[in-house]
Amino acid sequence: MIVVLKPNADPKKQEQLTSWLEDMGVRVHVAVGDYQIVLGLIGNTEKIDAELIESLDIVDSVKRVSESFKTCNRKFHPEDTVVTVGDVKIGSGNFVLIAGPCSVETEDQIVGIAKAVKASGANLLRGGAFKPRTSPYDFQGLKAKGLDLLKIAREETGLPIVTEIMSVTDLPLFEDVDVLQVGARNMQNFDLLKELGKLNKPILLKRGLANTLKELLMSAEYIMANGNEQVILCERGIRTYSDYTRNTLDLAAVPMLRELTHLPIIVDPSHATGIARLVPPMALAATACGADGLIIEVHNDPMHALCDGAQSLKPEEFDQVASKVRAIREVLA
Amino acid sequence: MIVVLKPNADPKKQEQLTSWLEDMGVRVHVAVGDYQIVLGLIGNTEKIDAELIESLDIVDSVKRVSESFKTCNRKFHPEDTVVTVGDVKIGSGNFVLIAGPCSVETEDQIVGIAKAVKASGANLLRGGAFKPRTSPYDFQGLKAKGLDLLKIAREETGLPIVTEIMSVTDLPLFEDVDVLQVGARNMQNFDLLKELGKLNKPILLKRGLANTLKELLMSAEYIMANGNEQVILCERGIRTYSDYTRNTLDLAAVPMLRELTHLPIIVDPSHATGIARLVPPMALAATACGADGLIIEVHNDPMHALCDGAQSLKPEEFDQVASKVRAIREVLA
Amino acid sequence: MIVVLKPNADPKKQEQLTSWLEDMGVRVHVAVGDYQIVLGLIGNTEKIDAELIESLDIVDSVKRVSESFKTCNRKFHPEDTVVTVGDVKIGSGNFVLIAGPCSVETEDQIVGIAKAVKASGANLLRGGAFKPRTSPYDFQGLKAKGLDLLKIAREETGLPIVTEIMSVTDLPLFEDVDVLQVGARNMQNFDLLKELGKLNKPILLKRGLANTLKELLMSAEYIMANGNEQVILCERGIRTYSDYTRNTLDLAAVPMLRELTHLPIIVDPSHATGIARLVPPMALAATACGADGLIIEVHNDPMHALCDGAQSLKPEEFDQVASKVRAIREVLA
Amino acid sequence: MIVVLKPNADPKKQEQLTSWLEDMGVRVHVAVGDYQIVLGLIGNTEKIDAELIESLDIVDSVKRVSESFKTCNRKFHPEDTVVTVGDVKIGSGNFVLIAGPCSVETEDQIVGIAKAVKASGANLLRGGAFKPRTSPYDFQGLKAKGLDLLKIAREETGLPIVTEIMSVTDLPLFEDVDVLQVGARNMQNFDLLKELGKLNKPILLKRGLANTLKELLMSAEYIMANGNEQVILCERGIRTYSDYTRNTLDLAAVPMLRELTHLPIIVDPSHATGIARLVPPMALAATACGADGLIIEVHNDPMHALCDGAQSLKPEEFDQVASKVRAIREVLA
Repeated sequence: MIVVLKPNADPKKQEQLTSWLEDMGVRVHVAVGDYQIVLGLIGNTEKIDAELIESLDIVDSVKRVSESFKTCNRKFHPEDTVVTVGDVKIGSGNFVLIAGPCSVETEDQIVGIAKAVKASGANLLRGGAFKPRTSPYDFQGLKAKGLDLLKIAREETGLPIVTEIMSVTDLPLFEDVDVLQVGARNMQNFDLLKELGKLNKPILLKRGLANTLKELLMSAEYIMANGNEQVILCERGIRTYSDYTRNTLDLAAVPMLRELTHLPIIVDPSHATGIARLVPPMALAATACGADGLIIEVHNDPMHALCDGAQSLKPEEFDQVASKVRAIREVLA
Repeated sequence: MIVVLKPNADPKKQEQLTSWLEDMGVRVHVAVGDYQIVLGLIGNTEKIDAELIESLDIVDSVKRVSESFKTCNRKFHPEDTVVTVGDVKIGSGNFVLIAGPCSVETEDQIVGIAKAVKASGANLLRGGAFKPRTSPYDFQGLKAKGLDLLKIAREETGLPIVTEIMSVTDLPLFEDVDVLQVGARNMQNFDLLKELGKLNKPILLKRGLANTLKELLMSAEYIMANGNEQVILCERGIRTYSDYTRNTLDLAAVPMLRELTHLPIIVDPSHATGIARLVPPMALAATACGADGLIIEVHNDPMHALCDGAQSLKPEEFDQVASKVRAIREVLA
Repeated sequence: MIVVLKPNADPKKQEQLTSWLEDMGVRVHVAVGDYQIVLGLIGNTEKIDAELIESLDIVDSVKRVSESFKTCNRKFHPEDTVVTVGDVKIGSGNFVLIAGPCSVETEDQIVGIAKAVKASGANLLRGGAFKPRTSPYDFQGLKAKGLDLLKIAREETGLPIVTEIMSVTDLPLFEDVDVLQVGARNMQNFDLLKELGKLNKPILLKRGLANTLKELLMSAEYIMANGNEQVILCERGIRTYSDYTRNTLDLAAVPMLRELTHLPIIVDPSHATGIARLVPPMALAATACGADGLIIEVHNDPMHALCDGAQSLKPEEFDQVASKVRAIREVLA
Repeated sequence: MIVVLKPNADPKKQEQLTSWLEDMGVRVHVAVGDYQIVLGLIGNTEKIDAELIESLDIVDSVKRVSESFKTCNRKFHPEDTVVTVGDVKIGSGNFVLIAGPCSVETEDQIVGIAKAVKASGANLLRGGAFKPRTSPYDFQGLKAKGLDLLKIAREETGLPIVTEIMSVTDLPLFEDVDVLQVGARNMQNFDLLKELGKLNKPILLKRGLANTLKELLMSAEYIMANGNEQVILCERGIRTYSDYTRNTLDLAAVPMLRELTHLPIIVDPSHATGIARLVPPMALAATACGADGLIIEVHNDPMHALCDGAQSLKPEEFDQVASKVRAIREVLA
């Protein structure tokens, strides 16, 4: 940690700060510049509150040198992580196509869509059984019944299933689910993350609406610090002033996360835009900037979908996107 | 709901849309303008997905007329709600001053601070026992032990206690807590909100970092729809591009929420700014724009606080703020 | 325009509003819902201030039906516009690659880079002569001398030149420039836009840091309303809370603008990210989502560039990007 | 400037960087930590591009120690600046109340409003003659004729006048104006700022919609570096995701700017909210957090105002606000 003092900082206060820091167990290295004094803190600075130091009146600013995310940090683990779901590999050059409806509605619906997306090349089936909805009066999902229908679709097609978990108390119901998804609103539901860290199962962790990449990585760290290192990160749009799409898809996060972490990174163009006709171009863009996969909403009858019909592709539209995605993957290879 | 069609919309598609809408149980009123056709939907439009309609190629835009928040809506409940905690009343002209440390640390600390803030006019004692922290490696609070210390401080001072709950599974521990706080990160943890709706206890609901006022009200609605109407709303800063304070305190939310809802509205200047020396001016500003109360972090020894020392006032600083707050309240009266 | 009244709006005030609206020259169509009254305003509503109406106490909300952008609106001009610069066509399937240094520095530098980017397939040469800098103490560009050097590079390579104009008073110096660029900070410098509207020359209009697509289109409208319809729009990143790139590249703007307007749309991945190693992936992503072109910073010696070296590609890096861009264009064809 | 190297940075590349830095004229001080090497650059680092250094592959991060704003920096000028307009003093405890219509419309209107606001205690008269409007089809102001009407109102009341300048070419018309206002959209119109720096007249500089405090100060610096040190800063709301007010009023900017600079700081609650009934509470809040003044829109007939009627107070409403503002000033004294 580096502490920059204000010009003409009171030497007595500087001494007090130094001894306080030494009490906290770090060594203090003093560098005197032409203009300001800089303290370099050496040793374990994890316990030192940078904002507190910054609030002192002799301090100009503080900068952390070492990063607080460890297990997911590429610095300490240079090789890409590959997450495996059945026969499907994700990351390090293995691209995954996850598709399915926003909500599971009926057996016919989910099995029909599962067969269609499999035929178009999808590797995993998604479908919501527990639905986070802004309004308590909106459809909240079929819950346990929805999970059962997903398992039927898995049996019929062989596609592993991905579905969202919203609460620790629902965990027993998810035992036979292949990939557990943490939604954007729960990215910092730390109690949930800790419990997921005790599982031996891939976790699909979506970036929160207003979270930085560092916060996303710290949430991955919550899962990994508890023992489960099978985490897939997902960029799904952030909230900005821009008002013509539901969120602003932040695609530069893909190559940037690639530098920061060894975990696989996928993109959700459906929730990011909220508009079906913007999903194909943004799916191609996500592929072109190097994502390890896509998660796309597909519905056989968007007009009658119980949830988020506005952003769902029809199976034939998904088929076209999937084939262009493959072509772009070849350009990148 | 109002549906504006594009100019020269295909009449056949318009007919299909109309009969689909009628199937959903609403009447469709057609108004032909000089330029575009406007459909007015009459009846219960709750079930109709505005975004889906908006995604149709003949539709230009859609506007909801009726609001989705009901129980907390001032339109249907014009008088201010007063939330009562012991002898303390909050709302409708009753101003509340909540103060205490970020984290409960020791009996001496919490009792000492409780006595100090009571002497300065605080009505409720705050203190964190379960702490949401971005990093799994940071101090996570004293948990059950912290709740016990809070209760000791309550016994010593008579101040009711406010503390944050992070997970449904911890609920039994909070039985004897006076006000349960939902933190910003959990504002859309809908499973938690539903459970809190079953209690007969005031809930302090903080606005999420990137949530609109409507979303805040919908989260209040989750609690109220389950039977608990004792909800206090709290503005605590939103996330913006602005980088010199931790968050941007959105004080115009106070008079705006006043129009939209009958619930009490308080402000947290400590978390909003993250910088102790900005807390006094922002506390006064919040009071001046009509807040029903303040929640402020106070610590006897910010340099050694285990959490958020940077934003804590010392007891003597709090005392000065409290007296100026009272003077501003008199100007407004 | 549609005006939704509050439930139980005072009928007398409604009458006053109606006659005020009729005085403004519009007809008022009244639709009585189960719940609220809706006024439909028919005729020329351009002069009516929607925010003023919305502020009346009997009014719940107001919605404009017709859009305020006309000349650039695809509704009134369904075919794509093609902007022509010498032999280069931009838009409607014609892809343009614009490249060059942030700042023009010396004849050797600009001619060298121009030759290199031409060899890699660039169609236009960019280079800043007048530089908008946050600090008055930073290098402000070579100005008139820089324009002269650009013209030399044009003569040597045949590449038309694009450069930024910052002030109306500099216009005479730009007579012999092929495309005039309006930077993000000047997107709403309306006096400048009006003057550019009187030229017969393509204008490259960059989206402002915090501007909506509608505001971008209204700024294009300022130019076009004055007679110059050769406008190229450019997405170059917006300002959000996200802090790891200089701006957040909003690529969904590309397909969305495609719907709203017939003008060509290009993307600037260099300014959007501010980090050279993120430029190639974002250039490919922009291509994949359907941009009509790219504007990319290239410098032979980024370490010694006088401005924005951090975001410049070396010529050999640009060459690789250009060839992958072409391959992706073929996938889309 | 401090440069943190990555762990295991190639020593050869470190040497190259060091000699490149020394060529740029700075001394390099090397501090070896347990974990990473930190370079401290001593001397004049103004010319060194921090982003460029940060983009090198051996570099982890870079931090500037010295600030780039000098003339407006409180560090080098600890006493508050007082700006004087006729008999009116602004700053260092002198509070200013600026009021008037958004646009000047007629002699009767501007003189009538001027008399009313003066009676309520306003010190300066505001009124727009040149209006920046998003749409080229909206009313653009009375221009020179509007300036003449303002001068008549000044003669009738003795109130000095404040009005916005949009373009360098209009400067001659503003010779007899007391305070020139730079609007939010022009905060980074550097050519305009430079010209205003040559005047001997107070400049009211509004913060841009998406500008940081540092950028605001750098724009003040553009004016001051050219010799004119009479700059008044104005917070007027920033653009965020929040959608119920036109902008988000960032009041914490007031005490924060107070620390950073010696210049006076005022607040515009009218443009910040865009809603007249939110102006009084936000005016009081701005006063309570220590602003040096307010600029408020007042119109005798908001329903017929040619511009921004939605946010204008009536004279009797302004009178009430002004008297409460005075009472809050007394609380703070």
